[in-house]
Amino acid sequence: MSEKPMTVPGIAKRARRAARTLGTLPTAVKNAAILAAATAIEERVDAILDANEGDLAEARPLLAAGSLAPALFERLPLDRRKVAAMAAGLRAVASLEDPAGRVLSRTLLDDGLVLTRRSVPLGVVAVVFESRPDAVPQISALAAKSGNAAILKGGREAVRSARVLVDILDSAFRSQGLPEGGLTLLTGRDEVDALLACEKDVDLVIPRGGNALVRYVQEHTRIPVLGHAEGICHVYVDRAADPAKAVAIAVDSKLQYPAACNAAEAILVHRQAAHVLVPRLVAALSAAGCEVRGCDETRALAEVGAATHSDFDTEFSAPVVAMKVVADLDEAIDHVNEHSSRHTDAIVTEDSAAAERFLREVDSAGVFHNASTRFADGFRYGLGAEVGISTNKLHARGPVGLEGLVTYRWELRGAGQIVATYSGKDPRHFRHLKL
Amino acid sequence: MSEKPMTVPGIAKRARRAARTLGTLPTAVKNAAILAAATAIEERVDAILDANEGDLAEARPLLAAGSLAPALFERLPLDRRKVAAMAAGLRAVASLEDPAGRVLSRTLLDDGLVLTRRSVPLGVVAVVFESRPDAVPQISALAAKSGNAAILKGGREAVRSARVLVDILDSAFRSQGLPEGGLTLLTGRDEVDALLACEKDVDLVIPRGGNALVRYVQEHTRIPVLGHAEGICHVYVDRAADPAKAVAIAVDSKLQYPAACNAAEAILVHRQAAHVLVPRLVAALSAAGCEVRGCDETRALAEVGAATHSDFDTEFSAPVVAMKVVADLDEAIDHVNEHSSRHTDAIVTEDSAAAERFLREVDSAGVFHNASTRFADGFRYGLGAEVGISTNKLHARGPVGLEGLVTYRWELRGAGQIVATYSGKDPRHFRHLKL
Repeated sequence: MSEKPMTVPGIAKRARRAARTLGTLPTAVKNAAILAAATAIEERVDAILDANEGDLAEARPLLAAGSLAPALFERLPLDRRKVAAMAAGLRAVASLEDPAGRVLSRTLLDDGLVLTRRSVPLGVVAVVFESRPDAVPQISALAAKSGNAAILKGGREAVRSARVLVDILDSAFRSQGLPEGGLTLLTGRDEVDALLACEKDVDLVIPRGGNALVRYVQEHTRIPVLGHAEGICHVYVDRAADPAKAVAIAVDSKLQYPAACNAAEAILVHRQAAHVLVPRLVAALSAAGCEVRGCDETRALAEVGAATHSDFDTEFSAPVVAMKVVADLDEAIDHVNEHSSRHTDAIVTEDSAAAERFLREVDSAGVFHNASTRFADGFRYGLGAEVGISTNKLHARGPVGLEGLVTYRWELRGAGQIVATYSGKDPRHFRHLKL
Repeated sequence: MSEKPMTVPGIAKRARRAARTLGTLPTAVKNAAILAAATAIEERVDAILDANEGDLAEARPLLAAGSLAPALFERLPLDRRKVAAMAAGLRAVASLEDPAGRVLSRTLLDDGLVLTRRSVPLGVVAVVFESRPDAVPQISALAAKSGNAAILKGGREAVRSARVLVDILDSAFRSQGLPEGGLTLLTGRDEVDALLACEKDVDLVIPRGGNALVRYVQEHTRIPVLGHAEGICHVYVDRAADPAKAVAIAVDSKLQYPAACNAAEAILVHRQAAHVLVPRLVAALSAAGCEVRGCDETRALAEVGAATHSDFDTEFSAPVVAMKVVADLDEAIDHVNEHSSRHTDAIVTEDSAAAERFLREVDSAGVFHNASTRFADGFRYGLGAEVGISTNKLHARGPVGLEGLVTYRWELRGAGQIVATYSGKDPRHFRHLKL
């Protein structure tokens, strides 16, 4: 059959139909599909690298002309090692537990009337990503593993790489019985808005890319969005902090990978320890190449530039950090709750009561005691794979593994029971026995 | 201190601060507060009934003049029995398990580095309700039990009843140590929109009322909404249905309480059984006072009016039902997935393979076999209390108990660990040991 162009709503409807089939496939079939895709990607490494070279050839002059951001360009190149890592990543997803089809609870409502709460795929997941082609096999495999259909919308700079990867993945998936339309790539420029409008046929949108992309998606759709626009994380150094731990955690949180969302953007220091800790923290950060911008009290203790008010609401994504002296733990918690993006915030202290208060009262997805904010990550948390990091409070929060791609259904199996029997005078009573 | 009028954003910020305290209270304190409120409501029954009489006195002429809907008026009156039921309801909430503070998982990431996923209150919950004053103590108690602050916005027709109830509840709560601002009532007409705009300080909105209210809330806020605008539920009578069960389930689903969201709005009948089942279903429904509107095939088998296309997308909330003959199970599942509001849909059949397909492939919160759709309810499900019924797929789905008012946090407790140790060359490896 010849392929005729489909509209985005048509693609979404087809994905919805495919999802109905995907949701009923046994785990073994889904795993076989993912393993077949891993082999196919290895076998077709040359085609993948050719396509990627095409993208790079088009991107280089744009980079030189300043019309493509260096950060986007950096994520684009593939090589044999990266393609091998894609295949290994697929095999890792195949080895994870299937998040769908699990019995979450069973209740005997009455004799012969059993209620089962069962995890099921969300249905159709849309992923909007920027240049990184590595996102394609990873998210495709996670969607297939959890029984979801996926619609991918890649950036134009990676269009050839994404196209060849989706073609390889989709034909491997279909060779193992996965349905047509279960994995689709959109490449048109104007298709993002059309996709974000498909609220009846798309159950979740996952934006993978910079803050601007995430914010655009959040503001232009009524489909639930899994992600975070900002990562403004804090390290609070308490008066009872061990100075060596404070320095190590501050440096790691800020500098181990400054562009990451879980990197710290602000360091708060308890006033009673500031005279010792501020000079040490500033010295260590500066020696590691970090610019420190301080409040007045910080600047009285170390030679640093002045922090503006807005510096405490900024994700620098660079070796720059804001530093503030606070009166006490209360002010630290207040400051964090006011300025944090609710991603991850840490306290450094040897006072366990202070630590427990911070962990209880800071309203963020991750609350850490004596550990770097950089640990906030699905792989480090042992989730096996990361669908994204959410700063929403509903559904999944913080680093989200495969469980972010499932919901649940209430299945009730009876023998003809009706509610009238359980109401009116002389009603029958429910048993509500947990099974 | 004199009470000076606060703005809605000011009330939301105060609730956010109160939530920080509420989130740290032990279960025993929260239970004592709820029990104190139960006693206070019993003691102040006369004041409650006086206030309610004031509302009724204002509402009666509006009802007579046709400017207050009869359905809203009907929900307004209180009496001693209803006030006693409020107190009993509060005591029942006190006896439920605390949904917050539970350890959901623990993982040893490495020696001395332990990750704990713990359930925590959402924070601030807003409830927008229509005339029913019973909603006030119920939702206030559920919020307090789960450690959330609550902002209630009642309808103007119930303003006196809601005011006296909130005053009694809040002072009982505060007598047991709950914070100021943890429970607030808004009564101004224009305050709904202001509340729906407080997206930084309100974590969840629960609309309790008719479809128009729910839809208004859904369309005017970026705060997550727990609820459902419509309940278009189906009963599919399969060719292998037991006719007696089919009739009983159809009549109960439609007529046991036609205004409920879990009442059936459409009945689908397999063509191979239609000649037997359509006449029996129509006879039973008609005899029970229900108007049946049928498709052409239905009308060839029974004397009923014609269903329009839009009848299959209508929540009648009345003793009216649409009936359609379908070719087979596939058409039934397709029809349900296209027209259902994803609330609850049922199949009647003695063919367990057909039943299991329906339960797997229908994408609704509740999928029932040989049981009335009217069972879709938090109390009937044994959840102890119902926060609402959600047709969203994310967070909580279907009837939602107290777990709908909590989220979770990732607590990481270390001894100074940094990520640099686990990367670069010769990295340390994570242990990822489930505890």
